[in-house]
Amino acid sequence: MGGLENGATNNQNSSPTTTKPTKTSLSPDSMINLDQGDPTLFEPYWRKMGDKCTLVIEGCDLMSYFSDISNICWFLQPQLGDAIKRLHRVVGNAVTEDRHIVVGTGSTQLLMAALYALSSPADRHPVSLVAAAPFYSGYKDQAEFLRSGLYKWEGDAQTFDKDGPYIEVVTSPNNPDGAVREAVVNRGEGKLVYDLAYYWPQYTPITLPLDHDIMLFTFSKCTGHAGSRIGWALVKDKEVARKMTEYMQISSIGVSKESQIRAAKILGVLGEGCRTADSENFFEYSHSILKERWERLRNVVKNSRVFSLPKYPRDCCNFTGKYMDSNPAFAWLHSKEDIDWESRLREHKIIARSGERFGASPKYVRISMFSPPEAFNLFLERLSAIIDNTNGNVVT
Amino acid sequence: MGGLENGATNNQNSSPTTTKPTKTSLSPDSMINLDQGDPTLFEPYWRKMGDKCTLVIEGCDLMSYFSDISNICWFLQPQLGDAIKRLHRVVGNAVTEDRHIVVGTGSTQLLMAALYALSSPADRHPVSLVAAAPFYSGYKDQAEFLRSGLYKWEGDAQTFDKDGPYIEVVTSPNNPDGAVREAVVNRGEGKLVYDLAYYWPQYTPITLPLDHDIMLFTFSKCTGHAGSRIGWALVKDKEVARKMTEYMQISSIGVSKESQIRAAKILGVLGEGCRTADSENFFEYSHSILKERWERLRNVVKNSRVFSLPKYPRDCCNFTGKYMDSNPAFAWLHSKEDIDWESRLREHKIIARSGERFGASPKYVRISMFSPPEAFNLFLERLSAIIDNTNGNVVT
Repeated sequence: MGGLENGATNNQNSSPTTTKPTKTSLSPDSMINLDQGDPTLFEPYWRKMGDKCTLVIEGCDLMSYFSDISNICWFLQPQLGDAIKRLHRVVGNAVTEDRHIVVGTGSTQLLMAALYALSSPADRHPVSLVAAAPFYSGYKDQAEFLRSGLYKWEGDAQTFDKDGPYIEVVTSPNNPDGAVREAVVNRGEGKLVYDLAYYWPQYTPITLPLDHDIMLFTFSKCTGHAGSRIGWALVKDKEVARKMTEYMQISSIGVSKESQIRAAKILGVLGEGCRTADSENFFEYSHSILKERWERLRNVVKNSRVFSLPKYPRDCCNFTGKYMDSNPAFAWLHSKEDIDWESRLREHKIIARSGERFGASPKYVRISMFSPPEAFNLFLERLSAIIDNTNGNVVT
Repeated sequence: MGGLENGATNNQNSSPTTTKPTKTSLSPDSMINLDQGDPTLFEPYWRKMGDKCTLVIEGCDLMSYFSDISNICWFLQPQLGDAIKRLHRVVGNAVTEDRHIVVGTGSTQLLMAALYALSSPADRHPVSLVAAAPFYSGYKDQAEFLRSGLYKWEGDAQTFDKDGPYIEVVTSPNNPDGAVREAVVNRGEGKLVYDLAYYWPQYTPITLPLDHDIMLFTFSKCTGHAGSRIGWALVKDKEVARKMTEYMQISSIGVSKESQIRAAKILGVLGEGCRTADSENFFEYSHSILKERWERLRNVVKNSRVFSLPKYPRDCCNFTGKYMDSNPAFAWLHSKEDIDWESRLREHKIIARSGERFGASPKYVRISMFSPPEAFNLFLERLSAIIDNTNGNVVT
């Protein structure tokens, strides 16, 4: 799921500020915002695609609430369903055969829908919601903000020992730390929701097509089109798909059709580009950017006596046919020093998110690898300066 | 707010089934679905507008989560905010000066956001939510489906006598019965949300620019673009606007940017068309369709001894400068006979919604006036047959 949670309105001096980000003009005094995962760095690729991805909508198009009333998810545009299935087949990251597709306003709305679908109004107690720490900080907010009697956030799945039904969200690769994950509670009364926002070849090797009961994906992290707010769920059980659709119906009467047909077009171009060799495909392009950023960041951090970054096993990617590194969307920076690193980095004009928000220690911070190039360069300069000043230790 | 609630997936043989509705081909056996308020009947107007309303979006456009971080509602596209303000000024239905605009995935999501913003997590008891019967059937679903501890549906505002804080939703003109309304509880601890989905000149005379704390509008019912899922709130209080934005952030991280810029374009063309006299403006067009339908329906109903329709006072419309009738989006059909009219009409292959769903008697049914022309004609034929067969009484 997304890399944007509570706090978005706290950005000061962050970029981009508009939907067509202009060149940033950062000065030595500028605050660099690496708090959110706003994936605008993939924009140049889509610019290069020119007319292939251009969408034209006439004034009389898409006026009805309905898209296909023969489908359980009656507001899903059929061409989006088709594009999603084709892309998963090309990439090989998820099984789509005999699955119901439920479209959402981002995968954020779909997680809410899954909680609604997997809980029982008839139960006296709310179902427990857990995720292994460090977990995406948005889950807690989503589970708690309406004080629902249907579900209750119980935090870290690794220490969860309550009896009764539970829902475990498995985020793989994980936000914030990029780790490939499996469920950890593994009890009969458990239901699983796989948040696979980052299970795409630019972030991690695609080792097999996943085949879980509920799998969530988002357009934002697949192609970088965060502004469209399109996510999708692949759902095995018909009744769960029906209840997720009901959630969408009651909370927003469906999902923007303009965004759906745009996502269909762009996912279609992406899938087609992976099958033909005429030009660099999007996954190669985005992988090369992230790989280069990770190499530069690791080069800076290796000089430090206190900072470290997770190591990821290389694995054979079925999509590329090669052994590949993981290059996650976020860096999960750990420090040996027992300091609140979010505050400390802020003194150095770097906005990152404390490990505490993810159920971990404040010795960790999450850093977005998605910032505009100029901001990323300045971040590396500042981090180098913090490290170099003390021969590998850090200045305070 | 919308005319679509629980039960959308129950449409059988309804039209339109796709986003570009094709000609329906109804037979004498066809079920006619007049349950939902899907406003596709305005499509021919927008088709006639041709290129004026055509939107072109390139593959690299609108990628960021952010639209304007200097705005409380940081995901509101500035051009949509401008178009909304201009249109309200032209129509004269709402005060926009010194108001915060919060955009939502339809006004449905905005009502949820308003409930969140107006309730207090610190309170031990949930705030009561009321609306005067007959009330829009969706409010109850929205207030109850997540079993929130923040707010509690308490039904009819007219019989509400609980102490403590409450929220009253005032729907004006009202769905289902088209009446112009004011708040009814009027106690100091009350907060009001005005749902003004139908306060546009095609439905009702615009008598003054309303000036309430929270006013909700929706693109669906203004222009007929239901598929775009765009609604907006005009909000006086900054903190309420901030909390509504927070709701949107946690539940869906903003609102489709494609839909926002399309709504901006179409609302802009609509507003411009009202100022120039080169062609029929949209409100004249849609008013004339609804007026003709209402005349035909009243002509059928006047032959009946058991059925009746509400009467609306004529009033001077500041927008047109003329005395005008009300021509609501729904007909609130009353019968003297103590019968469950939803079931009875279904036997006659007419799907309408029982008064019970709106907190009223099953002697009432709500009938959408938005159906495709062929369905509306067949409905009138069937209703005439029900009435004529018994010299004004009804057959059973």
